[in-house]
Amino acid sequence: MYRTHTCGELRLANVGQEVTLSGWVQRVRDLGAMSFVDLRDRYGITQLVVDETSDSSIREVVNQLGREFVIQATGVVRERSSKNDKIPTGSVEIALTKVNILNKAELPPFTIEDETDGGDEIRMKYRYLDLRRNPVRENLVLRSKMAHAVRSYLNDKEFIETETPVLIKSTPEGARDFVVPSRMNEGQFYALPQSPQVFKQLLMVSGFDRYYQIVKCFRDEDLRADRQPEFTQIDCEMSFVEQEDILNLFEGMTTDLFKEIKGVDLEEFVRMPYSEAMSRYGSDKPDIRFEMLIEDITSTVQGQNFKVFDESEYVGAIVVKGAASFTRKKLDKLTDYVKRPQVGAKGMVYVKCNEDGSFKSSVDKFYDAEQLARWADVANASAGDLILVLSGDKAHTLNALGELRLEVARQEGLMDKDTFKPLWVVDFPLLEWDEDSKRYHAMHHPFTSPKKEDYDLLESDPGAVRANAYDLVINGVEIGGGSVRIYDKDLQRKMFDLLGFTPEEAQAQFGFLMDAFKYGAPPHAGIAFGFDRLVSMFAGLDTIRDVIAFPKNNSGRDVMIDSPSPIADAQLEELNLALTLEDKE
Amino acid sequence: MYRTHTCGELRLANVGQEVTLSGWVQRVRDLGAMSFVDLRDRYGITQLVVDETSDSSIREVVNQLGREFVIQATGVVRERSSKNDKIPTGSVEIALTKVNILNKAELPPFTIEDETDGGDEIRMKYRYLDLRRNPVRENLVLRSKMAHAVRSYLNDKEFIETETPVLIKSTPEGARDFVVPSRMNEGQFYALPQSPQVFKQLLMVSGFDRYYQIVKCFRDEDLRADRQPEFTQIDCEMSFVEQEDILNLFEGMTTDLFKEIKGVDLEEFVRMPYSEAMSRYGSDKPDIRFEMLIEDITSTVQGQNFKVFDESEYVGAIVVKGAASFTRKKLDKLTDYVKRPQVGAKGMVYVKCNEDGSFKSSVDKFYDAEQLARWADVANASAGDLILVLSGDKAHTLNALGELRLEVARQEGLMDKDTFKPLWVVDFPLLEWDEDSKRYHAMHHPFTSPKKEDYDLLESDPGAVRANAYDLVINGVEIGGGSVRIYDKDLQRKMFDLLGFTPEEAQAQFGFLMDAFKYGAPPHAGIAFGFDRLVSMFAGLDTIRDVIAFPKNNSGRDVMIDSPSPIADAQLEELNLALTLEDKE
Repeated sequence: MYRTHTCGELRLANVGQEVTLSGWVQRVRDLGAMSFVDLRDRYGITQLVVDETSDSSIREVVNQLGREFVIQATGVVRERSSKNDKIPTGSVEIALTKVNILNKAELPPFTIEDETDGGDEIRMKYRYLDLRRNPVRENLVLRSKMAHAVRSYLNDKEFIETETPVLIKSTPEGARDFVVPSRMNEGQFYALPQSPQVFKQLLMVSGFDRYYQIVKCFRDEDLRADRQPEFTQIDCEMSFVEQEDILNLFEGMTTDLFKEIKGVDLEEFVRMPYSEAMSRYGSDKPDIRFEMLIEDITSTVQGQNFKVFDESEYVGAIVVKGAASFTRKKLDKLTDYVKRPQVGAKGMVYVKCNEDGSFKSSVDKFYDAEQLARWADVANASAGDLILVLSGDKAHTLNALGELRLEVARQEGLMDKDTFKPLWVVDFPLLEWDEDSKRYHAMHHPFTSPKKEDYDLLESDPGAVRANAYDLVINGVEIGGGSVRIYDKDLQRKMFDLLGFTPEEAQAQFGFLMDAFKYGAPPHAGIAFGFDRLVSMFAGLDTIRDVIAFPKNNSGRDVMIDSPSPIADAQLEELNLALTLEDKE
Repeated sequence: MYRTHTCGELRLANVGQEVTLSGWVQRVRDLGAMSFVDLRDRYGITQLVVDETSDSSIREVVNQLGREFVIQATGVVRERSSKNDKIPTGSVEIALTKVNILNKAELPPFTIEDETDGGDEIRMKYRYLDLRRNPVRENLVLRSKMAHAVRSYLNDKEFIETETPVLIKSTPEGARDFVVPSRMNEGQFYALPQSPQVFKQLLMVSGFDRYYQIVKCFRDEDLRADRQPEFTQIDCEMSFVEQEDILNLFEGMTTDLFKEIKGVDLEEFVRMPYSEAMSRYGSDKPDIRFEMLIEDITSTVQGQNFKVFDESEYVGAIVVKGAASFTRKKLDKLTDYVKRPQVGAKGMVYVKCNEDGSFKSSVDKFYDAEQLARWADVANASAGDLILVLSGDKAHTLNALGELRLEVARQEGLMDKDTFKPLWVVDFPLLEWDEDSKRYHAMHHPFTSPKKEDYDLLESDPGAVRANAYDLVINGVEIGGGSVRIYDKDLQRKMFDLLGFTPEEAQAQFGFLMDAFKYGAPPHAGIAFGFDRLVSMFAGLDTIRDVIAFPKNNSGRDVMIDSPSPIADAQLEELNLALTLEDKE
C-alpha cells in the first residue's frame, strides 16, 4: 500500500497515528538541525519533518530530495509548534520514520507553483507539468463536477443520454468538416460532426422524447483567439414541447448549476427580443450587468446643418453616468477605440453635461446649449453625465455603440466578475440576407421553425420573419442556443425553397432526415450549450483553453504531442491518397 | 402545451380528470359503434375511445388515423370495462373530447412492434424507426442508466472525469489509426485515438490521482462480426495504487452496477492466473458458470501404442457429466465441430463411462477397460459420464478443448443467462513471441510492468516473465482489462530494448511520455472496460450493435446516412490531397 492517507487529509484529530503518505516534493527547507519537506498531492500539502533525533539514513534520503521528486513517507502525526492556518493540514506535521524515493525528477522547466515563472508556450509544451499547478488542475476538477451536475439534472428529468456517431457523412455545405478517409471503403470519407443536430432530431422521430449528450464536436476553421478545433457541447433535444418549455427547463438547469457549484442564486432570467437587444445594446448577446442603453437620437440631431449627422442613416448615443469629468486624453482614447477597424466607426461625438448645467461638446460649432439640452433629455442624461454619440449606417453604428458600451464598462469597472445576469435573447430573424450570394441564409439552420404569426410574411417579406430561436446569454457571453424545429414536410419544403435549394439539392443533403419526417415526426425543439465556455465562465476565466486538459493552440496544433504531423507514405498508400503539395517537405 | 401527462402515467386515481396526451398511433380498432386508439410514447401506451356519443368531428378525425400518425388527444380519464393487466395503464382509457393530428405518417417499411417483420438490412436503413420499437429503445435507456451509475460510483470515489483529445497524433505503430487531414497545417494529419492510454498516463504524471472518462475510441480494421469502427470505453487510471487496489475498486463498481441495474448480487470475484485459465479452461477468458475443466491426461494415455497420442505433445480431456448416453449422431456433430478450421482439431476421441461400469470408446482397439478406467480416474469421470479427448501440440489442443467445452455447454444448456460469474484473470505473460518478426511483442502494451519477482527472468527467459496485467471476465466475455504501468525510466528503457526498439525509435514514438516520466512520475495503474460489451451483457444480447443508437455494419458503413461517401473535388483540393484509385468512380 502506497499510502494510508492523502496529503490533504490529516488534522489534529490524527495526532499520534502512524501514517504513510505519497506525493510530490513541493519544497525542502534545510534549517540545519531540522529539515522540512512540503509533500503535495492533488488533495493538499502536508509538512514532513526530520530533526537531530531522526535516523541518519532518513536524513540522508531527505538531503537528496529535489523539487517534484515522488516519495513515500511514513511517520507519526504530531501537532506543529508554528501552525499554518492557510492550509487545512496546517496544524499538523509528520515526524518521519521512513522515507522512500519512488521516482526522481529533473528540475522542471518552470516552477510548479500557483504563480509560475513559465510562459504560455513552454507551459503548453509541458502541459502535463502545468496541469500539476493547483489553479490549472482546479479548473479541470470544476469541469468534472459541472459535467456530473448537468447529467444528474437531466437524468432526473428523464433525459436519455445517447451517444451519436463521430464518424458521420460529409455534406457539400460542410466546408469546415474534418474528413476521415476510410481504408475499408476505398476513396470514401467519413466526416467528424460539427454538431449532432441531425441525429438528435432523428432520435426525436424515434420517440426518445428527451435526449442529451455531453459531446465532442469538430470544426476545421481558422481559429479565432478562443476557438478550438474540437470542442464540447451539452446537446439536448425534447419532443412535444414549445419554446417556453425549453426555456423553463434549461433555466432550471442553469440556476441549479450556479447554486450547486458556485453558491450563486440567479435572479429571474430576462427575456429580450433580438430586435431590442440590437437596438438597445448593439449586440445579440447583451451584457445586462449594467445599463448604459443605446438611445436613438437621429431625429433629435438631424436637420441642424451638421453634415455628418444629416447624411447618416442613424445616430445613436450612450450615456456614461457621472463621466462629465472625463479628460481629453480619456475621450481621445475612446475615439481611437471606436475607430479601430474591428469597431469601424469614423469618429465619436461627445457631450459633457456639466454639473453647473452647462454643456461642453465636440460639436459646439454646430449645436447650441439648448439643442444639446434636448439631446440630454432624449438620451436621459443628467448633470454630471457624459453622452457619447456615433453615427453612420444603422447596423454598423449599433454594433459600434455596442462595442463602445462594453469598452466603457471595462474601463469603468462595471463588469463585476461575481455578478451573473442571465438573459434569453428570443425572436431571432429566421433568415439573413447574404450580399455575396444574393440569397437568404438560415440564421440558425434550415430546420428552425418560423413563428406562426409570421407565416404570412414568408412569401411577402422573408427577411422580416422571426424564428422560434433562442440564445442563453450570461454577462454578454453566449452560453447556449437552440430552436423549435420544423416538423411539417410542407413547411420544410417551403423553407428549402426560400433558401434557394432545388428539391434535388435538398434531397441530396438532407434526404435521410426528410425521409424520416415522412413516418410521423413529433413537434420537437432543442438547445446546445458550449460546455467549454460555461466552465470557463464558472472558473472566472476569459479563455476556454484552461478548462481543457490538452488544448490546441491558435494554429490547431497540440504542441505537446506535436500534432498534426506528416504520416508515413505507406499509410497514405493504403488509403489510396497522395499529397499534392508542390514543396512537400 | 402539447400534453398534461405521458402515455405511461395515467392510473385509476386519475379517473375523472381531463387530460391531454401526445404520441404515436400504435393501432386503431374500429368496432363500428366504438373505436379504440392505442396511443404510444416512450413511457407507455394509453387507450383512447370514441363512441356514438362522441362528436362527429372527432369520429371523423379518428377514422383518418393510420399507424404511426402523431396526434394530440384530449379527453376525460375513465375506468375501462375490460381491463388489460399487461400494461400499467391498462385499467383506464380516455374518452376523447378533442383530437388533433400533429403529423401524418406513411406506412412504415416494417411493423413497429416488439416482434417486427423487418429484416436486419431494412431495419438498419430505417434505424430511426427501429429505435421506436420498445426492445431496441430499452437497450439505449439501459445504456444511459448504466453510464450514469458508473459515473456516480467513480465520482463518489473522487475520480476526475477528464476529456482527452480526439484529434491526436498518428504513430508508425498505429497501422489501424484513422487519420484526419488538417486544412490549416498542409500535408499534415491528426489521428483518432485507439485509446486515451498515453493521455491518461500523462494525467497521472500531472497528479490527477484518479481519472476516468466514458470515451469514444476508434479502430480502422476489418470488422469481425461484433466490432465497430467507433466504440466506447470506460477508461480509468489511478496513482499510488497496486494491482490489488484496482481489482478491489472495480470489483466494487461492477458489483454495484449489477445490484443497482439488474438487482443481481454477485458472488466473490474469483482470481485466476492466466496459466490456470489456459490449462484448465483452454481460454484466457474462461466461462466459470459451469465446471467441465480440462484435465491433462498425456502421461496416462501415452506409451500404449496409440500412435496419434504417442506423437502428440499433449492430450487433454473434458468430462461431460451424465452424457454417456450421447447418440452417435451427437458425437459426430461434436467431432465435426472440433474439426472446423476455426477450432482446428484433427479428430476427437470419446469414452463413454456406462452406468454398468463398462466403457465404450472410439479407441477400444488400442485401450482396454482397465486402461480406460485409469483415464476416467485421472479425468474425474464417474459412471454415466462422457470423456472427450483431443490431442496435438499443447497450445492448439488446449484452445480446441476450450472451444469444445463451450460448445458442449451451449448444447447442454449450461450457460444460464441469469447467472453471472465474474473472474479476474491475472498474471498474464508480459511478452509474446512473434514468429513472423522473430521478436517479442508486448502482450498488453509496452508500458505494462513486469512482476517484481520475475525481474531476474527479463534477461534470461523473457517469455516467462509475468506482467501486472489483469482482465475482468464475466461468463466468458472479456469486460475489461488493464495493468500496473512502468513508471521507472530504466525499466522502461529495458522494456523497449526487449521489444526490439532502438533508443531512437522509442524516443520517436513515445518521446513525450518518456519526457514526462523524467519529471516525477508516480506509480500508477489503470483499466478500461468495453462499455458497449458491458451494456450488451446487461441487456442479455449477444451483439453490441443493438446497444448503439446508430451502429455501422460489418463493412464500417452507416447505411442510414450512407457513409462513408465520396467527397467533392474542391474539398480534396483544399486538403492538398488526390485520390490514387485507378478506377475512380
